[in-house]
Amino acid sequence: MSLRDDMTILADRAVAASRELALLNARKKNAILKAMADELDRQSGRILSANRGDVEAGRKAGLSPAMLDRLMLDAGRVAAMARGLRDVAALPDPVGRKLRSWARPNGLRLVKVSVPIGVIAVIYESRPNVTADAAALCFKASNAVILRGGSEAIRTSGVIVDVMLEGGMKRGLPGNAIQLVRTADRDAVGELVRLTGKVDLAIPRGGEGLIRAVTEQARVPVIKHYKGVCHVYVDESADVGMALRIIENAKCQRPGVCNAAEKVLVHERIAPSFLPGMAALLSSKGVELRGDAKARAIVPGMKAAAEQDWHEEYLALIMTVGVVPSVEAAVDHIMKYGSRHSDAIVASSKAAQDAFARGVDSAAVYVNASTRFTDGGEFGMGAEIGISTDKLHARGPMGLAELTTYKYVVRGNGQVRG
Amino acid sequence: MSLRDDMTILADRAVAASRELALLNARKKNAILKAMADELDRQSGRILSANRGDVEAGRKAGLSPAMLDRLMLDAGRVAAMARGLRDVAALPDPVGRKLRSWARPNGLRLVKVSVPIGVIAVIYESRPNVTADAAALCFKASNAVILRGGSEAIRTSGVIVDVMLEGGMKRGLPGNAIQLVRTADRDAVGELVRLTGKVDLAIPRGGEGLIRAVTEQARVPVIKHYKGVCHVYVDESADVGMALRIIENAKCQRPGVCNAAEKVLVHERIAPSFLPGMAALLSSKGVELRGDAKARAIVPGMKAAAEQDWHEEYLALIMTVGVVPSVEAAVDHIMKYGSRHSDAIVASSKAAQDAFARGVDSAAVYVNASTRFTDGGEFGMGAEIGISTDKLHARGPMGLAELTTYKYVVRGNGQVRG
Repeated sequence: MSLRDDMTILADRAVAASRELALLNARKKNAILKAMADELDRQSGRILSANRGDVEAGRKAGLSPAMLDRLMLDAGRVAAMARGLRDVAALPDPVGRKLRSWARPNGLRLVKVSVPIGVIAVIYESRPNVTADAAALCFKASNAVILRGGSEAIRTSGVIVDVMLEGGMKRGLPGNAIQLVRTADRDAVGELVRLTGKVDLAIPRGGEGLIRAVTEQARVPVIKHYKGVCHVYVDESADVGMALRIIENAKCQRPGVCNAAEKVLVHERIAPSFLPGMAALLSSKGVELRGDAKARAIVPGMKAAAEQDWHEEYLALIMTVGVVPSVEAAVDHIMKYGSRHSDAIVASSKAAQDAFARGVDSAAVYVNASTRFTDGGEFGMGAEIGISTDKLHARGPMGLAELTTYKYVVRGNGQVRG
Repeated sequence: MSLRDDMTILADRAVAASRELALLNARKKNAILKAMADELDRQSGRILSANRGDVEAGRKAGLSPAMLDRLMLDAGRVAAMARGLRDVAALPDPVGRKLRSWARPNGLRLVKVSVPIGVIAVIYESRPNVTADAAALCFKASNAVILRGGSEAIRTSGVIVDVMLEGGMKRGLPGNAIQLVRTADRDAVGELVRLTGKVDLAIPRGGEGLIRAVTEQARVPVIKHYKGVCHVYVDESADVGMALRIIENAKCQRPGVCNAAEKVLVHERIAPSFLPGMAALLSSKGVELRGDAKARAIVPGMKAAAEQDWHEEYLALIMTVGVVPSVEAAVDHIMKYGSRHSDAIVASSKAAQDAFARGVDSAAVYVNASTRFTDGGEFGMGAEIGISTDKLHARGPMGLAELTTYKYVVRGNGQVRG
């Protein structure tokens, strides 16, 4: 049987399961999630044993220490996975919400109601906890999920799915609601994301390479997370202390994540007084600054920024610094070089705030706050399956609501069209 | 210069125009729409003259009478186009709506606000009025549009766009907000829908062949309209008179459109009394019925339905008839053979209504009303750019709201992440 046949069977099973899932009520889904969490706790030893196999194989295969760390589980990490499932159980049901309801002059009553998307393929890299997180979120939104994790975590992911199924099926989880692609064949993803009519959505989570590969092969819709080239713009009207705190937080609090700031733009009227202090602060935190000509004229020791620096997502303690003549110029710059992820203005001028909030078309635009808040938890969504840099269907943090779509239910008393 | 270069230039211009469009307020946009409408009225003669050229060329090329009819304009049709633009001007601005706003415990205030999608490519077939309709709807939602009409209407569409631009630019329309692909080269579409990062969305409008071709080539998101295989299910609890009126309307009022019903399913308890009358009524309207074994046992003269009949979108006075044992069986049948467009139940039982409304995952599910209401105008959207059979971003009728996306604007007073 070909790989395509294998993936088609998986998808057909998922389609069938999605129909059963659509009929589960919230109480039942939450009981299943809790049973899955309990089972993860109960079978923690089995998961850790499978994980030791993956880690050993990874060591032999020469995985980097960073990759091994991402791969490795301990009792605390398994317990955190189980807690994550209970947290998802505690969230409100995203399915069956009345998004809008209205009546027409002919008496038809329309309700736009949230419904599951159907079958979602989640393709990710080495972190085994994504297996549990993604499965729980897709399930809570009544979607069937097909998981495809990194091959280096294949033993761990396999056991996590088995354990979740064992727990969940005791409480009525459809057996094919959560499926894992268990072949290491790299072409499986390509086959999966071409199954239009069966797979409704693909969500790749990982590095840019993975996401581009999935997008290139896909015929089903893909929600992507590309890079975060995030800016902080310091307006001439900024509170200087606030600007420094925000820049330090946005750059240094966790430099390796997508919502960390990579660029600072400073209004030319405030730059001479602001930049030296900012440079001293960031240098003391170990940040390397790369400036444009105007910034370097103010802070002479600063390295020169190349054109490529403005495009770069460093994910490290490096920051590009530019001086701009106006908030409009800052907006233009961000629209030219930014990745439409998260961008902030620090300003006390309402006019500047509004020009920025209106002009910058990013998933999240901040006024006087750090870019680091772009996150499902920080937004109050309770959990997130990822952050979308796409514009359609879901933009920015994706929580449970973004794992649903809608349909219209129209009730009448015999209306026909004239 | 290659076709790809040509399309890239078009797209780059559209991206630049989309930034200008995002800053236009509703009053300005409406003034532009009215100026475009006035100009269409004023230059009606010029449009009709170009149209005569297309019709003449079409005749020589052997276009069918139906295609020539779709292509041909008269003064009334041009006036209707202008009226359509004024109707769009009268609709509320879909951009800048607060979709949700909330605060976080740390004092951050979040607003989810509707914003334009950006650059939309609309690919359509021979009707020249789509040129004006699609341009007006995309523009009202502050999107730059790239239009690609059928080559047989190329003169007419060219003049319509020229006239709209002449009118609109007097009132401040950015010159590249509405662009038309003016080459007849068929590969232009393929190039256009591969321009990720420049073109945000493609909307093909036309037959299944066009839509499949666009989807196959696209790397940008595509919102598709495939076929409408719409069902009416008559429950055992149905009001028989209502069922007959709804079936007649859904099948006969306009059989060539996507929301016309193609299939009837009848509960086995009501079938013996219902089907003979239904068959007589539909036969009197010229409808050919094709039935399953149980239906044919009740109405002996009925043709036999083949398996393929259940999948077919006839767009003609033909209807497939089946007998089912329960509402659940009707739901299963519709989920197996339907196209997730529009499906109706006729029932007075609340339990049957709810089972159907819940179980059928179609864009529009009707209880005691005709499937023919799936339409932007009938839904009260004012106008529609199409009906989506996709599940993501937009489902069912797409009006102005569906031509927008959203961003989050987050306001704080110096919040940083801990």
